[in-house]
Amino acid sequence: MGRIICAGLGPGDPDLMSRRAERAVRGASDIAYFRKKGRFGQARRIVEGMLASDVCEHAMEYPVTTEIPFDSPDYIRLLATFYDDWAARLTALAQSRDVVVLCEGDPFFYGSFMHLYVRLRERLEIEVIPGITGMTGCWTATGEPMTWGDDVMSVLMGSMSEDQLVTHMQGADALVVMKTGRNLPKIKRALARAGRLAQAWLVERGTMTDQRIARLIETEDHDCPYFAIVLVHGHGRRPERVEAAQ
Amino acid sequence: MGRIICAGLGPGDPDLMSRRAERAVRGASDIAYFRKKGRFGQARRIVEGMLASDVCEHAMEYPVTTEIPFDSPDYIRLLATFYDDWAARLTALAQSRDVVVLCEGDPFFYGSFMHLYVRLRERLEIEVIPGITGMTGCWTATGEPMTWGDDVMSVLMGSMSEDQLVTHMQGADALVVMKTGRNLPKIKRALARAGRLAQAWLVERGTMTDQRIARLIETEDHDCPYFAIVLVHGHGRRPERVEAAQ
Repeated sequence: MGRIICAGLGPGDPDLMSRRAERAVRGASDIAYFRKKGRFGQARRIVEGMLASDVCEHAMEYPVTTEIPFDSPDYIRLLATFYDDWAARLTALAQSRDVVVLCEGDPFFYGSFMHLYVRLRERLEIEVIPGITGMTGCWTATGEPMTWGDDVMSVLMGSMSEDQLVTHMQGADALVVMKTGRNLPKIKRALARAGRLAQAWLVERGTMTDQRIARLIETEDHDCPYFAIVLVHGHGRRPERVEAAQ
Repeated sequence: MGRIICAGLGPGDPDLMSRRAERAVRGASDIAYFRKKGRFGQARRIVEGMLASDVCEHAMEYPVTTEIPFDSPDYIRLLATFYDDWAARLTALAQSRDVVVLCEGDPFFYGSFMHLYVRLRERLEIEVIPGITGMTGCWTATGEPMTWGDDVMSVLMGSMSEDQLVTHMQGADALVVMKTGRNLPKIKRALARAGRLAQAWLVERGTMTDQRIARLIETEDHDCPYFAIVLVHGHGRRPERVEAAQ
């Protein structure tokens, strides 16, 4: 009986995967990874050149990417069937060998693997190897520390309503906004309303050789991939007791 | 002229440091790391057995740990002098060689190194190697995915006021509370007021061999180190459009 090993690969630079993830990848007889139909796959790209020559690859291709909106009930049903199907196929594979599932970033932080994990954990032994999150790669790329002292950091999704974004942006010190893409104009409006737009950065492919870092205010709305991340750095909320004393 | 290389070492398990951090540590002629007076130092412990036999070690011992409250103006002034002093010493060392500064977790996420970084970056070339954050190690240790879909995740400090904690705990889906220790009773009261106490976990030394994971409600208030982390997992906030459609 084999195991499922989910290897968090980190933000993109292969040199930033952990020693344990590296061993899992190099030693794998079977790997599985998500990708969009017709693409090579970002997780697969990270491990290029590290795989055994006779590795067996299982590309888990998302069923739909553009025809149905990501957040529609139809797409959610389609995805559930997709995960059910792959959970069954991985269970069958793992009867005789270990299968290494490749995940960008950290598997438990907004990762697609979690949908397999909850389906598989009653049936199989699963090892999850954490990874450096994409947001960590992005704030490292800016060359600016992210959080200090008593800073509150909030991770938000660009798919939220503008009003919800504003409320959270006003309440936190450091901000990470994921799911950008077509939500970018709304994210910019929300940051402006919260008084945080001038301090915001847009980071794409942080830590990768083609990373792009720009002040958000200087970017074009139409020129933003879904996986780019918006960052606002914290500047060190002082403990209240000290503020009161000053 | 040498460089400063800050190696993020990850959450504690040496196997979870990145390939790049490992190379920096193994190849170092000089390492520097923070520690409390009289302790071995957590960052130093992570690299035990990986250092060159003739490595030169520079232990940067925090000036005060218990006599003055962490958040008092006196302690903040003492720390500023401490960082000034070490920035000068590292600058002198780096005239002739590279110095590898060891950091637990990720250097730019609530890390002490950032206080050196802002003092050194005008004077020297600095490379920052990101690491897996302590919180990532802790949520991996719980075996439960942390954030799904449109979840908002907030990182809070136990040193905040109870009312502030309650406000943030009510607004976010997934919660991370750092700086626990003597703040634990306040954190528990705030979680109870926000209706989140039953779902909260206390994780100490996540990913380390002696990790401890417990439901927060079952822990004793006096039995919590400052660096233990409280976690509440998200359960997947659905996009608003879908909620409206149901």
